[in-house]
Amino acid sequence: MSSPVLVLVTRPSGATVPSSGPGADGAGFALADPGLPHISVLDLGVTRGDGIFESVSVIAGVAPAIEAHLDRFAASARALDLPDPDRTVWSRAFEAAVAAHPDASTGANLAAKLVLTRGIEGDGRPTGWIVVQVARDFTAQRENGIRVVTLDRGYRHDVATTSPWLLQGAKTLSYALNTAALREAGRRGADDVIFISSDGFVLEAPTASVLLREGDRFSTPSAELGILPGTTQRRAFEFFSAEGFDTDAPRLRASELARADAVWLLSSVRQAVPVIELDGRPLEADFALTRRLNAHLATTH
Amino acid sequence: MSSPVLVLVTRPSGATVPSSGPGADGAGFALADPGLPHISVLDLGVTRGDGIFESVSVIAGVAPAIEAHLDRFAASARALDLPDPDRTVWSRAFEAAVAAHPDASTGANLAAKLVLTRGIEGDGRPTGWIVVQVARDFTAQRENGIRVVTLDRGYRHDVATTSPWLLQGAKTLSYALNTAALREAGRRGADDVIFISSDGFVLEAPTASVLLREGDRFSTPSAELGILPGTTQRRAFEFFSAEGFDTDAPRLRASELARADAVWLLSSVRQAVPVIELDGRPLEADFALTRRLNAHLATTH
Repeated sequence: MSSPVLVLVTRPSGATVPSSGPGADGAGFALADPGLPHISVLDLGVTRGDGIFESVSVIAGVAPAIEAHLDRFAASARALDLPDPDRTVWSRAFEAAVAAHPDASTGANLAAKLVLTRGIEGDGRPTGWIVVQVARDFTAQRENGIRVVTLDRGYRHDVATTSPWLLQGAKTLSYALNTAALREAGRRGADDVIFISSDGFVLEAPTASVLLREGDRFSTPSAELGILPGTTQRRAFEFFSAEGFDTDAPRLRASELARADAVWLLSSVRQAVPVIELDGRPLEADFALTRRLNAHLATTH
Repeated sequence: MSSPVLVLVTRPSGATVPSSGPGADGAGFALADPGLPHISVLDLGVTRGDGIFESVSVIAGVAPAIEAHLDRFAASARALDLPDPDRTVWSRAFEAAVAAHPDASTGANLAAKLVLTRGIEGDGRPTGWIVVQVARDFTAQRENGIRVVTLDRGYRHDVATTSPWLLQGAKTLSYALNTAALREAGRRGADDVIFISSDGFVLEAPTASVLLREGDRFSTPSAELGILPGTTQRRAFEFFSAEGFDTDAPRLRASELARADAVWLLSSVRQAVPVIELDGRPLEADFALTRRLNAHLATTH
């Protein structure tokens, strides 16, 4: 497998004075060696998880949802009072990172990660970078489905409104509890997690949106519940609408998950993965429909 | 001000095979240049806030609470399923980092940060380091007090028991919401925050324990509430016991905060800071007692 491509974004926001060094050119970004360390032990991204990210799927060199990802990146920055990412610099840095990857032209699936941190404490200058790697192969999950457990997310459904400092709905680097939840799923013999609010509403998976089918209606939990607006979920809804199905984003009770005709997890790189077991009970999965949905998600327009 | 001292802990856990390079010696740690980057953009400490830390106060070259901090560091590692920190290596690395600081022998207050991350994704080898710096001067906060607002922490008081995957009570690198809460305090004209559980119990501050006085009784919220057991709070209780006061760690209602005779925030480096205003209402502060308490916290035994 080819090694990752790293681009350091030396001018991540309009207000940023570029740091000195090899990246301090007019473009605002520069290729760097991913095998070398580039982050200071004093960077608030690592000392406090104080930063944001996006994971972007790149198919045959094209990222169909890049604009939606850049929108969400900017929204996350606002939620954390970080400087606005310079969209032009990030767009060009992203294109340069993808173009520099040897597998971009082979049709391989790549995964790009965009990261912006608050930077070194006291510096007042954010740190930004993009890593592009060959995507992990999720074919088996797409073809065979996954087992999921529901776990309490601890928060009420309305905390994003009542308590914005909890940063629900922002994609922050403070993700330790998401990985802890996935380890808990493993202990329970499952592959993934669907979080439920403390008052019983379906939220999201640690790294994916949730999709339910009931008859001809496809639903995802409302983004008002303090969850991430899913870029892949949006593309999935375009597919279902074009197929003549109804789509909506209501509040969904945990009990509706168990009664659903089918459940999927949706995310950029993994695409649509059918849930074949929920809290130990088998769920029906429509593998033919999943294949058609994933073919749509893999289109580059 | 002298520059920070950095020690890379190359053998952070017993099971760790030391990495190659200058730190791969028998001691399991090595001094490094804090002005250079040492962390990979692929380290899970920065990409997912997946790691733990401790902040340790060093007074005249001595860290009176280091054993309690190493205990809590080990407990945080267990909560995150990280490998057990090698206590001998971390103790010696800590001593070496302090000894290497030019101000250790001058009686200056230093702040040490111990960090352990899950390491580079796929490597299976944790990353560890210690930074020692001159501590920020909190004299004004100790002498004049601070204004505090209460903010909803979003979780019920019992989530540490019901939902351990939320990692309450572990000191993780996923601290973005703590810094977001402090920014919210600033917007409200205050200096700091006391978190309240969604069901009305006093919890902790983003980087401190809470101490209440009612008559001759000094209380801190019970560690059963999913909060960090405070190393400074423990030393404060020793002081109050020796002074003949009662101490306890009950469940405290938010209403008890407003009724308290006095309130303090307690943390290693800042020590005891009196709260002079709570949610916009003035609170009595006993500055003479605060001074005696801080003199005790500054003793090195």
